[in-house]
Amino acid sequence: MVTPTAPHVYLEDIAKYDGQDILLKGWLYNKRSSGKIRFVMLRDGTGLIQCVGSINDIGEEGFAAVDSLSQESSLMVVGTVKAEPRAPGGFELILKQVIPVHVAMGEFPISPKEHGTAFLMDNRHLWLRSKRQVAIMRIRHAIVKAIRDFFDGRGFTLFDPPIFTNAACEGTSTLFETDYFGETAYLSQSGQLYGECGAMALGKIYTFGPTFRAEKSKTRRHLTEFWMIEPEVAYMDMWGAAELAEDMCCFIVQRVLETRMEELKVIERDPAILEKIQKPFPRISYDDAIKVLKNAGHDIEWGGDIGGDEETTISNLNDRPTILYHFPADLKAFYMKRDAGNPKLALGFDVLAPEGKGEVIGGGQREDDYDVLVSRIKEHGLNVEDFEWFLDLRKYGSVPHAGYGLGLERTVAWLCGLPHVRETIPFPRMISRLKP
Amino acid sequence: MVTPTAPHVYLEDIAKYDGQDILLKGWLYNKRSSGKIRFVMLRDGTGLIQCVGSINDIGEEGFAAVDSLSQESSLMVVGTVKAEPRAPGGFELILKQVIPVHVAMGEFPISPKEHGTAFLMDNRHLWLRSKRQVAIMRIRHAIVKAIRDFFDGRGFTLFDPPIFTNAACEGTSTLFETDYFGETAYLSQSGQLYGECGAMALGKIYTFGPTFRAEKSKTRRHLTEFWMIEPEVAYMDMWGAAELAEDMCCFIVQRVLETRMEELKVIERDPAILEKIQKPFPRISYDDAIKVLKNAGHDIEWGGDIGGDEETTISNLNDRPTILYHFPADLKAFYMKRDAGNPKLALGFDVLAPEGKGEVIGGGQREDDYDVLVSRIKEHGLNVEDFEWFLDLRKYGSVPHAGYGLGLERTVAWLCGLPHVRETIPFPRMISRLKP
Repeated sequence: MVTPTAPHVYLEDIAKYDGQDILLKGWLYNKRSSGKIRFVMLRDGTGLIQCVGSINDIGEEGFAAVDSLSQESSLMVVGTVKAEPRAPGGFELILKQVIPVHVAMGEFPISPKEHGTAFLMDNRHLWLRSKRQVAIMRIRHAIVKAIRDFFDGRGFTLFDPPIFTNAACEGTSTLFETDYFGETAYLSQSGQLYGECGAMALGKIYTFGPTFRAEKSKTRRHLTEFWMIEPEVAYMDMWGAAELAEDMCCFIVQRVLETRMEELKVIERDPAILEKIQKPFPRISYDDAIKVLKNAGHDIEWGGDIGGDEETTISNLNDRPTILYHFPADLKAFYMKRDAGNPKLALGFDVLAPEGKGEVIGGGQREDDYDVLVSRIKEHGLNVEDFEWFLDLRKYGSVPHAGYGLGLERTVAWLCGLPHVRETIPFPRMISRLKP
Repeated sequence: MVTPTAPHVYLEDIAKYDGQDILLKGWLYNKRSSGKIRFVMLRDGTGLIQCVGSINDIGEEGFAAVDSLSQESSLMVVGTVKAEPRAPGGFELILKQVIPVHVAMGEFPISPKEHGTAFLMDNRHLWLRSKRQVAIMRIRHAIVKAIRDFFDGRGFTLFDPPIFTNAACEGTSTLFETDYFGETAYLSQSGQLYGECGAMALGKIYTFGPTFRAEKSKTRRHLTEFWMIEPEVAYMDMWGAAELAEDMCCFIVQRVLETRMEELKVIERDPAILEKIQKPFPRISYDDAIKVLKNAGHDIEWGGDIGGDEETTISNLNDRPTILYHFPADLKAFYMKRDAGNPKLALGFDVLAPEGKGEVIGGGQREDDYDVLVSRIKEHGLNVEDFEWFLDLRKYGSVPHAGYGLGLERTVAWLCGLPHVRETIPFPRMISRLKP
């Protein structure tokens, strides 16, 4: 085998090489033949291209090479880049040389035909190679990068909270635990409490890492392991946090539209729906939401939890996200601050994504009074000793502060228009899914 | 309290406001008085500034406000920014108004005096507010951002591997485990095997997330929970991965020098040491390293593991990182490819940081032959069934591929010149440290 001298190019950069000879390294996505021509659709993980081989250009040897390769066999090709407006991606490759690398051992399990979900999930490591899954992973990356760029650009410091924690902050029923050299450690459900320490040290921080919930429910919106982003800002109130969330959502959507239009096409996501995600997001109080829900026929009274079905109704009110705020305090965590004018209300908000997607963000202002927080911890039946470090934030220079948590996978599902979160992460973990 | 009308500014942006009135929101770092003047050192998490209050400017009321505040009390101040070359940060604030927010309840536990390590670790949530810890956290963030920018700029796709895994890839002795709805799940020690799936799907990927090792050893280099970055590239060989690691290290160091010089000053880290981190990094084979170590008096023979002390000797050979390569295959994991010319050698490499810091990167080329990999799995006493998905990568379009893992906390310790990794992460987790 002669080592090709043409430069190795990735398909996402191919537009720079129009008219030039290049080397591609990838896998056979599919192929067909038509008389004296062989067509090879090649993927390299950054894009797809149709390679056209005529008998005059690649000879019998080249034809034999193509004929030896089945779906997902690996190969390198040398050829000339040619603009072709009708081709997906806008270019074709006129083949000069075909170099098989490895012929797949047997038929690739995931053919272009339809497969059941369980089969695809069992073969997730191979399913990821499909055009649609590649597009979703690339959009996920663009969303992650947009979120980080958003906070970095506003002077936030990244603050990685611990995964192992010694206390259960909201009950143990949905916690995973592990033996930690004789002690019990719980896997973090949220980095918020630690993020608050960060905000007091660094002014404004964001966490970005995996969190864990032993969710026994099988729904389209729950994973046992999912990534959360949790900004926390000293000297910020609830409305400041809601505006931050609004700005962040618009920034992410804009970035996806700017950098991932090709991928949106692949997954057949209408960009017009995303272009509507603009400020201001409509605000609706919990009080008003209850009225809307009752009028829409929901069986709910003031004080009731706004669950998945109710969220769908509210999020369908608008073609942009809806900010739902001022929940009954009894529904919320012990650390949420109450409204000074009405102590039955918590200074919290959710952002509900449109198209019936529901909650993607939950946040609010934190209780910053030492004595009140001690009472709340006791009221919730929690152990004050476990929270001494957290209480210290209220002992030494307490300040108003607020933040929120954004679920990454729900955001990817929303922006990609996916009905289920299982395709939003490389290897989803659910109640009955621990492998591959 | 009158709401101040001056704009709220963060100290890292103060240079833009020279001569203007601004509002700062923060905490009292320390204070002193001198006749008719009060000096308040204020921190806001992004910087420190000396605020100067004369009796004429802030009056008795302002003096009383300052006098009421102890270390780490929270306050807002309004004043005029004044360039002052002798001041740390280059500016002072001439006070006009002092607004106490919360007077610390008792003495702040961490005073400027010396404290023992155990005390500081018990109070990590408060220790993080110190000038030195803030600087380290900001450098950590700059390093994280540099790593992501490096890979993003080269067209890598971020690929988040699962934390919960169903099989122990290198024995169970250092694995944390948890009950997963009746099954046993292990917390990931490395995302590499999943990263390889990603490379086959997306061409070139990097993982970036927490990993877990139940290390029973108390050393200055081990945490039970630490962040790893693992790039994996299809069609790359060992030397390609080593060059990628080299380029990445130089990129990170350059970025820290460009953006975090103030913080390096705070922690008294000599930038001249970092400026020496330039390509090319010296390479030394394991064979040659053994000779060097013997000459230096180490009791080691060919085939022996190069441990902490030996790494120190080798890393001290150079003032830039050293790339150590071609280890005895028996020392390495089952998935490492062997040298075609000498099957006793593995195509692996480590990058040893200078100043005696030792290994920060380990990587190499992966075994890509199906039959060979099956044999290795059996030789290592592992269960072939657990690795069927991993073997599939060698069944369907196998390609040469390589990658490496970078330990984030060791990198932060190296670049900051810290003797111990415990200060490199907000809440370090070690064998006897699970809280706060």
